[in-house]
Amino acid sequence: MAAAEGPMVLRGRVHPGEYHDSVRLMRVAASVRALDGVEEVGVLMGSPANRELFVEAGLGFDGIDGATPDDVVVAVRGSSESAVEAALDAAEELLRTPQGSRRGIVYPTVESALRDAPGGAVGLITVPGEHAAAEARKLLEAGHPVMVFSDNVDVADEVVLKQLAHERGTVLLGSDCGTVMLGGLGLGFANQVPTGPVGVVAASGTGAQVVATTVAALGSGVSHMVGLGGRDLDDEVAGISLFDGLAALEKDPTTEVVVVVGKQIGRRTLGRLLEVVGSMRTPVVTCLFGQGNAWVSRLVGAWPASSLAEAGQVAVRLATGDLPGHSGDPVDLVAVGERRRELGPGRVLRGVFAGGTLAQEALQVARAVLDEVSSNLDGAVGTAGHSIVDLGSDEFTKGRPHPMLDPEAQAERIRGFGADATVGAILLDLVLGHGAHEDPGPLLAASVAAARERAAAEGRELLVVASVCGTDLDPQDAGRQREALRSAGVVVMESARAALFAALCVADETEQAAADARAATWLRRPEAVVSVGSTWFSDAVEAQGADVLHVDWRPPAGGDPELMDILDRLD
Amino acid sequence: MAAAEGPMVLRGRVHPGEYHDSVRLMRVAASVRALDGVEEVGVLMGSPANRELFVEAGLGFDGIDGATPDDVVVAVRGSSESAVEAALDAAEELLRTPQGSRRGIVYPTVESALRDAPGGAVGLITVPGEHAAAEARKLLEAGHPVMVFSDNVDVADEVVLKQLAHERGTVLLGSDCGTVMLGGLGLGFANQVPTGPVGVVAASGTGAQVVATTVAALGSGVSHMVGLGGRDLDDEVAGISLFDGLAALEKDPTTEVVVVVGKQIGRRTLGRLLEVVGSMRTPVVTCLFGQGNAWVSRLVGAWPASSLAEAGQVAVRLATGDLPGHSGDPVDLVAVGERRRELGPGRVLRGVFAGGTLAQEALQVARAVLDEVSSNLDGAVGTAGHSIVDLGSDEFTKGRPHPMLDPEAQAERIRGFGADATVGAILLDLVLGHGAHEDPGPLLAASVAAARERAAAEGRELLVVASVCGTDLDPQDAGRQREALRSAGVVVMESARAALFAALCVADETEQAAADARAATWLRRPEAVVSVGSTWFSDAVEAQGADVLHVDWRPPAGGDPELMDILDRLD
Repeated sequence: MAAAEGPMVLRGRVHPGEYHDSVRLMRVAASVRALDGVEEVGVLMGSPANRELFVEAGLGFDGIDGATPDDVVVAVRGSSESAVEAALDAAEELLRTPQGSRRGIVYPTVESALRDAPGGAVGLITVPGEHAAAEARKLLEAGHPVMVFSDNVDVADEVVLKQLAHERGTVLLGSDCGTVMLGGLGLGFANQVPTGPVGVVAASGTGAQVVATTVAALGSGVSHMVGLGGRDLDDEVAGISLFDGLAALEKDPTTEVVVVVGKQIGRRTLGRLLEVVGSMRTPVVTCLFGQGNAWVSRLVGAWPASSLAEAGQVAVRLATGDLPGHSGDPVDLVAVGERRRELGPGRVLRGVFAGGTLAQEALQVARAVLDEVSSNLDGAVGTAGHSIVDLGSDEFTKGRPHPMLDPEAQAERIRGFGADATVGAILLDLVLGHGAHEDPGPLLAASVAAARERAAAEGRELLVVASVCGTDLDPQDAGRQREALRSAGVVVMESARAALFAALCVADETEQAAADARAATWLRRPEAVVSVGSTWFSDAVEAQGADVLHVDWRPPAGGDPELMDILDRLD
Repeated sequence: MAAAEGPMVLRGRVHPGEYHDSVRLMRVAASVRALDGVEEVGVLMGSPANRELFVEAGLGFDGIDGATPDDVVVAVRGSSESAVEAALDAAEELLRTPQGSRRGIVYPTVESALRDAPGGAVGLITVPGEHAAAEARKLLEAGHPVMVFSDNVDVADEVVLKQLAHERGTVLLGSDCGTVMLGGLGLGFANQVPTGPVGVVAASGTGAQVVATTVAALGSGVSHMVGLGGRDLDDEVAGISLFDGLAALEKDPTTEVVVVVGKQIGRRTLGRLLEVVGSMRTPVVTCLFGQGNAWVSRLVGAWPASSLAEAGQVAVRLATGDLPGHSGDPVDLVAVGERRRELGPGRVLRGVFAGGTLAQEALQVARAVLDEVSSNLDGAVGTAGHSIVDLGSDEFTKGRPHPMLDPEAQAERIRGFGADATVGAILLDLVLGHGAHEDPGPLLAASVAAARERAAAEGRELLVVASVCGTDLDPQDAGRQREALRSAGVVVMESARAALFAALCVADETEQAAADARAATWLRRPEAVVSVGSTWFSDAVEAQGADVLHVDWRPPAGGDPELMDILDRLD
């Protein structure tokens, strides 16, 4: 990153009358950012809000104020005039290259597409949130199920559309729904997993992905993944799609077990879920781990799982007829001890996550053993101390691609941790599948190598622990991605275990309680009881046939506190 | 309770130079309170704090100010002069009757008892808290394990004594330790359970009792119950006795499974627990349900249980070699629906508990499905709305017996609920065993009958749900106690299920989502995808071999918000 230290050149261009969707623009920006001599790039539509983002990022240039929401704005900061101009040219070229569906026909409007769409088509909406409801309604009114990937949809619109879908016998999946799989076809972010007996209903996209990939790793498969959108379990929406999904899976002949995944659930919705689950013939595994109390689902006959991976394991065991046993493969505590010695005391944990539910799970695990873990999931991320950041949340994705599309936001932070003497352990996730970055492992591995090198140059050890959500059938090949990380010295394990391993490695060493090698002599039926005080408990002991030596205790000096103080001082 | 409505007579007596322990005094008070024409009774030592309690309870009388801490004070309020005088005479007679150990020798001091005590004797301390540490130290220095039942012991003293015990190869169990069982001998409150393979380490007395009685009900038994005292798992004490107990059980040849029970655990102590559990050969079941994150113990190979009863079930299954499966016997949701109709909407739940951990468990379950459940466990008990009260906590036991010794505090509240039109469901526990009240079921059943009668007279249904912690071998016979409750119309079930049943019965009825009878037509591989927006996800769908109808969506009017508003209004 030598470029960041020399003098900087900043140039921008406005391309009038062009429109591209935000993912396309971000992909262009990511390609340009990778060019030699480029330090920072912005490629966005010229809305007032976006123009402010340019200025905030130090990418404001003469002429940006003239841009309108109908124009594409490109700005590049780099090490030289020539590098910046070459980057702007490259952006222009990329924007001009036709993209879009490789084989399908491109339609100008939903109405025109609907004229050609077969009855069994599904809608997939990825337009900006304020326009998503209107487009979804067109598809729902034509009887099609619809997945709304877009976020920032008005919740009142979501409720109305979900009720509409329910009445029409179809379904609205979303808004802010990242992952759906219907009959093996993944929409949005989805791993390539075999079809099989496990149905998933999930208010969390990455949560569903972890469950599905765990199921696949155990040799089983997934029937359907019904994504609900992050708000469906709130009492405001009250699980309209959740209950549509459960009713559908209960009747689906290919589904033998259902897994319900969510970060949190409203109380009324949980009450209703308990009643629905209690009336289903299909076994239900619940993983509602943001809700400490969701284990009450056990009381109506469901199987509560305590981590995403465990939910997948329990589901497979139920589908194969085995009772759920222990997950096995516990965290290696000898390795924890060794790493803790290498790292030394007082080091901190930093988690940088692409998957929101993975970040949430890691935060919970870390907080169980570490004091004061800050996070943007429920507050602000501290500049010092332990922290876990969900880089996929809104505040980090304004004007930048989601880290599942481009791991640069993770890589950038990892490189920074190499220079921070307080950091002892880095925890990260890597989410693969359709829709995700095509080869994130090597990019992240390079950032880890750089961070570890920097730390080593200053005599510090740096532990990096990662979890990979993916299968070997995914376009990125999970095995190859794990290998790339391992070659940079990364410890790769299942997500919750990764979080515990990293957290224990930086936990203050607890005082050694020196487990005594002698067998305890007190762990046997006492020969007698010396009972000092109440006769009540002496009687209870005698009633069991034991000898009691009762001490008829009286307070010293009859219980007068002042006199007792005096007597104490005479001792 | 007609007496409460007529004119009242209040008289008191001071018995100078007498000392009796608080349990004895409370038993006397309970006996006198049961006499005809008696409304309220106080029997306490005459300390300044106790004299204030008399005044606060409306039991202050002429002459009480002359009482000293060396005197017993008795006050009675009743319906007539003769009834009150008869009650005061009865109290005097009961205080004069010699009590104490029925067969053992009574010693004046710990020192004298120690001269006769065999090497294998255990100490049991029930003196007032400020004196407990001094007496415990004498026994520990002589090499005896010691159980401190007393509460209000200085925590610094507890740490010093626990370290002393650890160094001497013995153990301090407590302070505030309600239940211990060593080789089948119960100390404090303990159920009569068969000896067997399950060892219990518990920072919660009633928690340990529920685990032990569940184990007994499943035909297995308990090796030892190592009570720790409520503060042992705090980081201030840092589990000194916990780790002594685990080390002892790990080496104990009769223990095949260990259950760790606690309401909450400090982070450092949990970190250390994970390391110790991870290094044990004996399987460990954890039930730390006050700590939502304690499921991380699964990650080191432990078996987390989500309720006290489940902890017992899992332990027995591990001891018998079966993998833990489902607990079965889920809450009957048809019955919930019927009860909810009977009770009608807007009724509230009131829980009145003797066991602190049972109250905590019920509170967690109730809060999962009900809004705003107040409790003295973490705040103040509201006068309206849902509430769960731990009547065994300090604020309710000053000058009154613990509800496990005398269920009158529960009975009194239950009677009151009968007159409260807002109350729909009452939830209570009943804890049996050595040390507990000799026959609480009929007393509570009578209060339930009175409450239900009063409610019925005003045309209201009242649901009463109870859990009984005990075995048929207990002095009170759990089967007989359950029968007494059932005969008054009480629904008796396992504690966590009781709480969920009661909570669901008063939960606001959730809107019927009308699970559609039609099989969902959308739950199948789509024939095509109408993709509106980003080409990125269209490409990801096509890569899976599906047909895409891509809509080249552009914002209306080029994305200008003002113009879009105008267009919207024109629609």
